[in-house]
Amino acid sequence: MERKIKVIGFDADDTLWVNEPYYRETEDSFYELINEYGDKESIIQKLLEVEVSNIELYGFGTKAFMLSLIETALFVSDYRISQQKIGEIIKLGQVQIERVNEILPDVEKVLSELSKKYRLIIASKGDLLDQERKLKNSGLLQYFHHIEIMSDKKMENYKQLLAHLDIQHHEFLMIGNSMKSDIIPIIELGGSAIHIPFHTTWIYEEIKFGNLPHSRFKKVKSISDILEIL
Amino acid sequence: MERKIKVIGFDADDTLWVNEPYYRETEDSFYELINEYGDKESIIQKLLEVEVSNIELYGFGTKAFMLSLIETALFVSDYRISQQKIGEIIKLGQVQIERVNEILPDVEKVLSELSKKYRLIIASKGDLLDQERKLKNSGLLQYFHHIEIMSDKKMENYKQLLAHLDIQHHEFLMIGNSMKSDIIPIIELGGSAIHIPFHTTWIYEEIKFGNLPHSRFKKVKSISDILEIL
Repeated sequence: MERKIKVIGFDADDTLWVNEPYYRETEDSFYELINEYGDKESIIQKLLEVEVSNIELYGFGTKAFMLSLIETALFVSDYRISQQKIGEIIKLGQVQIERVNEILPDVEKVLSELSKKYRLIIASKGDLLDQERKLKNSGLLQYFHHIEIMSDKKMENYKQLLAHLDIQHHEFLMIGNSMKSDIIPIIELGGSAIHIPFHTTWIYEEIKFGNLPHSRFKKVKSISDILEIL
Repeated sequence: MERKIKVIGFDADDTLWVNEPYYRETEDSFYELINEYGDKESIIQKLLEVEVSNIELYGFGTKAFMLSLIETALFVSDYRISQQKIGEIIKLGQVQIERVNEILPDVEKVLSELSKKYRLIIASKGDLLDQERKLKNSGLLQYFHHIEIMSDKKMENYKQLLAHLDIQHHEFLMIGNSMKSDIIPIIELGGSAIHIPFHTTWIYEEIKFGNLPHSRFKKVKSISDILEIL
């Protein structure tokens, strides 16, 4: 990491704060509502299929998730699920949106240090309003220059991001928990990336990958390890 | 408009392309589905109430609209609307998302001219994915530096936008069809704004306002009139 990094992009969900486990909890509550229509594994599998098939149309975030939950409930119940339960599914999503996300350990210390030397941004594919709310609740707002919402996190999207930031690829470092979304596309683009695994990963984000160039890629166990690299 | 404008922000929907009328058409189809539960005026009034009450939670855009349509249908039918119709409401929203928005007259000519002298951005509060799709379909992508999605268009949001763009308020000009969202907050912030009214405005965007400073505010009939000002 000896390159002249100017801007560091932080993935937000499950890198700065807990997020994916809340989706799993909502899925558990969703299953409780409709468990008369099938076993958990096949219903959650169907939900994943619906979510993935809707990504092109809806993108990511809680509202997309809510619409896919309703569609899944209609499908697996063969349109027999009660109207009251559809109302309850909407409420489950609303409750999830309003949750205050738990900040991961050492995040504030690390951001405080790094913000003295680099411009920090959040680069996330969630809903903008959700990420603004989470950032405000987190007390971490002061460390970030701004939030970048990306419609996806493929190489093409990062290319747009760097053009927008008016920086070269070697001036950008991305930090996040998803190899597929936060690491691989940036490395392919010629930038740098640090991977911090999180215990819960959405299946859609899982990926197989080969060797990555050690000069531009690091994997750390926790966010505080970053301070020894940068 | 003699100030040193560096960046021009264009509202997208109903400034560059037709959008609001498609919402009205979806509302018409929505009403056809549930007309047994009340007259059109009161159902559309209830929909507006649901949409406005959900803005804090959902923000703007088609997915928020879809969730509010479902909630309204459940409410006005006293949870009697059929499950099939809820599926059809989801389809109405999906069809709207996939519509190719008609470009308004003279837009390309104006953008082509202005992009030679200024950095142009889109400043919109729709869904990022939707706006990226519309911009790609429009053939206007080449004229814009990037898209800025804003969670709302109040003075505070524009303040964040200018900080993010690293420009001063007097270097920014906003062009759009909504006095409430595109004009007033920017004038309050010390920036410049040009209003291009559109024939259809969402009730939520309507606002009463007094006199605005003529040096920083202009109202034009069509987008091509801008070329005589800038």
